[in-house]
Amino acid sequence: MAIPPEAFFLHGNLNGTLQQRIRQLVAEGIVAGRFRACDKMPSSRGLAAQLGVSRITVTLAYTDLVASDYLTSKGRSGYFVSASAPLQPEFEVGPRALAVQVDYAQRTGQRFSGAEMLRRPADWASFRYPFIYGQADASLFDHQNWRQCAVRALGKRDFEALTSDYYDRDDPLLIEYILRNILPRRGIEATGAEVLLTMGAQNALWLAGQVLTRPGVRAAVENPGYPSLRGILAQTGAAVDWVDVDEGGLPPDAIPAGVNVVFTSASHHCPTNATMPMARRRALIEAASARDFVIVEDDYEFEMSFLKAVSPALKSLDREGRVVHVGSFSKSIFPGLRLGYIVAPEGFIREARALRALTLRHPPGHIQRTAAYFLSLGHYDALVNRMKQAFKRRRLAMGEAMEAAGLQVAGQGGVGGSSFWMVAPEGVDTEALARGLHAQGVLIEPGRVFFDPARAPRNYYRLAYSTIPVGRIAEGVGLIAAGIARADRCKPVRPV
Amino acid sequence: MAIPPEAFFLHGNLNGTLQQRIRQLVAEGIVAGRFRACDKMPSSRGLAAQLGVSRITVTLAYTDLVASDYLTSKGRSGYFVSASAPLQPEFEVGPRALAVQVDYAQRTGQRFSGAEMLRRPADWASFRYPFIYGQADASLFDHQNWRQCAVRALGKRDFEALTSDYYDRDDPLLIEYILRNILPRRGIEATGAEVLLTMGAQNALWLAGQVLTRPGVRAAVENPGYPSLRGILAQTGAAVDWVDVDEGGLPPDAIPAGVNVVFTSASHHCPTNATMPMARRRALIEAASARDFVIVEDDYEFEMSFLKAVSPALKSLDREGRVVHVGSFSKSIFPGLRLGYIVAPEGFIREARALRALTLRHPPGHIQRTAAYFLSLGHYDALVNRMKQAFKRRRLAMGEAMEAAGLQVAGQGGVGGSSFWMVAPEGVDTEALARGLHAQGVLIEPGRVFFDPARAPRNYYRLAYSTIPVGRIAEGVGLIAAGIARADRCKPVRPV
Repeated sequence: MAIPPEAFFLHGNLNGTLQQRIRQLVAEGIVAGRFRACDKMPSSRGLAAQLGVSRITVTLAYTDLVASDYLTSKGRSGYFVSASAPLQPEFEVGPRALAVQVDYAQRTGQRFSGAEMLRRPADWASFRYPFIYGQADASLFDHQNWRQCAVRALGKRDFEALTSDYYDRDDPLLIEYILRNILPRRGIEATGAEVLLTMGAQNALWLAGQVLTRPGVRAAVENPGYPSLRGILAQTGAAVDWVDVDEGGLPPDAIPAGVNVVFTSASHHCPTNATMPMARRRALIEAASARDFVIVEDDYEFEMSFLKAVSPALKSLDREGRVVHVGSFSKSIFPGLRLGYIVAPEGFIREARALRALTLRHPPGHIQRTAAYFLSLGHYDALVNRMKQAFKRRRLAMGEAMEAAGLQVAGQGGVGGSSFWMVAPEGVDTEALARGLHAQGVLIEPGRVFFDPARAPRNYYRLAYSTIPVGRIAEGVGLIAAGIARADRCKPVRPV
Repeated sequence: MAIPPEAFFLHGNLNGTLQQRIRQLVAEGIVAGRFRACDKMPSSRGLAAQLGVSRITVTLAYTDLVASDYLTSKGRSGYFVSASAPLQPEFEVGPRALAVQVDYAQRTGQRFSGAEMLRRPADWASFRYPFIYGQADASLFDHQNWRQCAVRALGKRDFEALTSDYYDRDDPLLIEYILRNILPRRGIEATGAEVLLTMGAQNALWLAGQVLTRPGVRAAVENPGYPSLRGILAQTGAAVDWVDVDEGGLPPDAIPAGVNVVFTSASHHCPTNATMPMARRRALIEAASARDFVIVEDDYEFEMSFLKAVSPALKSLDREGRVVHVGSFSKSIFPGLRLGYIVAPEGFIREARALRALTLRHPPGHIQRTAAYFLSLGHYDALVNRMKQAFKRRRLAMGEAMEAAGLQVAGQGGVGGSSFWMVAPEGVDTEALARGLHAQGVLIEPGRVFFDPARAPRNYYRLAYSTIPVGRIAEGVGLIAAGIARADRCKPVRPV
C-alpha cells in the first residue's frame, strides 16, 4: 500500500529540528502499526510539499530512518517501510476497569509520605521575585563548558564509563579529582577507600542516618536545622534530641549526655548561616572523643565563602575517625546533577557502599565522568568564582534593601552563602505571608519546617539570593516588607 | 614574576585535546597556588615550542582561560594570571595522623555489607569470552543517536530539565512517553499518578520492598531468583518464603498460605528464562485476589523477545490494583543509565515517591530528558530491534556450540532473552569452575547466589550472550566444556 502524504502533519506535540520531527512522525506511525511492513512512503517531493519543508529535509530524515531499519530504499522506486522494522506488540487494552481492592494506606502504614519536605513550586522560574534557595541560575551557570564536558564524556573512549553497570564502584577519575583537589581545600586528606559518591547531599545524609542510627541510638540534630534530617531519622527509628543553635552554630556543651551521633552543618549552618568558630570546632571534636560520639558534618555550601576565608572542615581536625564528612555539587554546579560524596573511615564507607548498592547501585556513569572533566579542566573553579562575585553583589543589594525596608535579619553568617535567615514580628505567620506574596510573584521560604515541631515558631523565614537578579532585589524586598506590615496589622490579638 | 615555559609539561595523567590539556595545566597551577595573581604567562610562541604544539593551540587555550577569568590579556604585553582568578584556600594538612578510635563494625552492626551481591570484574570488557549478563555491547549500541539526544538535552531550552531540583517529581516528557508508548506494549494502561521513575530496577525493587514489607510481613520469592531481592528483604525484616519455580515459572499453588507479597519475574524468569504461560498468569492474579496478596512483577527484560511474541504483563490482567509493575531501561538502553520505573496504584506510588525523595530525590534530570528524546525519536525501538536480531544469531550459535560440546541447558525459555541457565554434572562446583576459566579469559556466572542459601546447589551457572561476539561463542563454549570435564574428573568422591 502507498501511504499518502496527507497521512503526515507536523502537530504541536513535536519539537526538535524539522528533520527530527519528520523522523519521529514516521517512526511513531510504524511502531504504532499505522504504517505496515512494505508500505510505500510518499515521495520526498510529495511529503515536502505536504509539510511545507524543503525536499532535502525529507530526504535526510528518510536516510536516517533507513540507517535504523525503519525504512528501506529501493533505488528509483523510492522508500518502503522495512520488513524488519520495529513493531509494537498489540494487546487488547480494554476499557479501563481498575477498582483498587487493596488498602495501600493500611498496608504501607504510610510510613514515608508523612515526612515533611521543603518544596518549591515547579514553575518557580516564572516568578518575578524568586527568593528561593538551591536552584541553578541560568545567567551564572557555565552552560557552554558543561555541555562541552558532557559531549566529551559521550565519546567512544568513554563508552564504558557511560554504559557500565559499576555495581558498588565509582568512576575512578572523579574519585581521584575529589581526593587530589576538592578535599585539600577543606584541609582533608583521604584515600580512595574513604570516599563514596552519592546522589547529592540528601542521599549522603540518608546513608549516614541508616548506617549510624537505628532504634536505641540517640541522634542530636540542630534546632533549627535541615528539615529532611527529621524524615531520615524518623525512618531509622533513632531517638532525636533537638539542640538549639546560637550565633556560633551548635554549642557542644548543649549536646545531651548519651548521644551517639551528632548532625551538624558547621561551616554554613542551615538555615541561620552561622559559621562555627575554630575554637568551638575543636571543642566539638574533643567532646566527640571524650563522650564517644560520631559527627556527621554536612558541608553542603563551603564554596560560597566570599566575605571571609573559609575555615577548614571539622573533618580536617579529626584524628580518631569520628567525623563523617558530606559534600555536594548541588550548590556549586547544579542540584539536578544529584551528585555528592561522603568522606569517612573505611569501616563506615564499606557499610554505606553496600547500602547504596542495594538501593540504587551507583550514580549514573555519564554524570560522574562529566563532572570529572568539568572539575579537572578548571571550569568548576571558574564557575564558583563567578558565582561568588555575583552572590557578593546580590548580598550587598539584599542588605541595603532590607535595611531600607526595615526587615529584620535573624542570621546572616560572616562568610557568605546564598541566603539570609529572617524573622518577622511575633504573631506574623510566614506560611500565610508566603501564600499572599505568591500571588504577587514573590517566593519566600517559611521557616517553620526547620524547627523542632514541638516548639516551632511561625514567624521565621528564609530569603535566598541564588537565583534572583540583582536588579529585582529592592522591589521584591519592598513587596515582602509591605506584606509583613499588612500581616502585622491584621494579626490575631493574643488573648490576655 | 614571569612564569618560564619550562614550568609546563604535558604529563601522562592528562587526556583530552591538546587545547584542553594546556588549559588544565594552567588552571591546575593557578588553583594549586603554584602560579600567583599577576604572574606573567609564557608567550604563546615560547609555550608552543616547549610543549611541541602549534602556536594557535596555545593561543586558543589562553583565550579560553581569559573567558573563565584564570588569565587576563594585556594587549601586546601578553597574558597574566588574573587578580581574581580562582584560588584554593590553603590549610595545613599535616602528616596524616588518623588512628580510628571508633569501632564501626560494632556501631553499624554491619547490617548492609553482609548481603550477597552479583559482581562482575570491573575489567570484564578486556576478557576474550565474557559470557556475563547485563552489560552493554559497544558493537550493538546506537552510540551516535544517544549522543545526539544527549546533546539536545544539554541545550538552552532544556536548562531547567538539566539543572532543576525536581524534589519528588519526574520529567513530564519521559513520563508521558512511558504512558503512551512503553506501557501499551505490555498491555498496561495507566495515569501519570501511577508511574514513578527509579534508579533502575534495583531501586524499584528496593522501594517496593521497603514500602510493602516490614517485620511481621511475609514475602514469597522465587527459588532460584534475583539475588539482590534477598538483601532488600533482609533489610526490611520481612519473613521470606522461597518458592521453587518450574518450567512455567512460579506455580501459584506453591505459594504458602499467609503470604502478603509475592515477587516474580513472570515474563523472563531470572535466572531460568522461563515464561509464565497465560493460564498461570491468570491463576496467579486470581490467587492474589482470593488470598489478598500483592504481586511485585519484575518485567526487566520483556523487550528481548525474539523467538515468540511477548505475552502481556501480569499488570495488564490486574483489575484490583494488586500488581506493582517494575520496568527497566538497563537491558534495552544500558545499565549505567540507572533508569527504570514502577507502575502501581496511586496509594503505593505516593509512598514510594516520598521514600525516593527522602533517599535521593530523583534520577538526574539530564538522564531523564535524554531518554525521553531517545524514545520519542524512535531510536529506542530501532535499537531494541537491532539487539533482538543480534541476540537471535548469538543464541543460535550458543545452542549449536553447547550441543556440540555436550553442555546441559537447565532453562532457556521460549521467547528469547540474553542468557541460558545451565547445569553442570552433580558435584561440580561452578564457583571453582569460574575461577579456573577466569585465567583462560572466560567469564561465566556461578549459580549459587540465585538460590535459597539453606539448600543452594553448587552446580548451576548462567551463560549470557549479550556482550560476546558471535564469532567467539564456539571457542568460549569449548573452553567451558573442557573446564567442566576436568572438574568432573577431579570432583571429590562422596563418602558412602
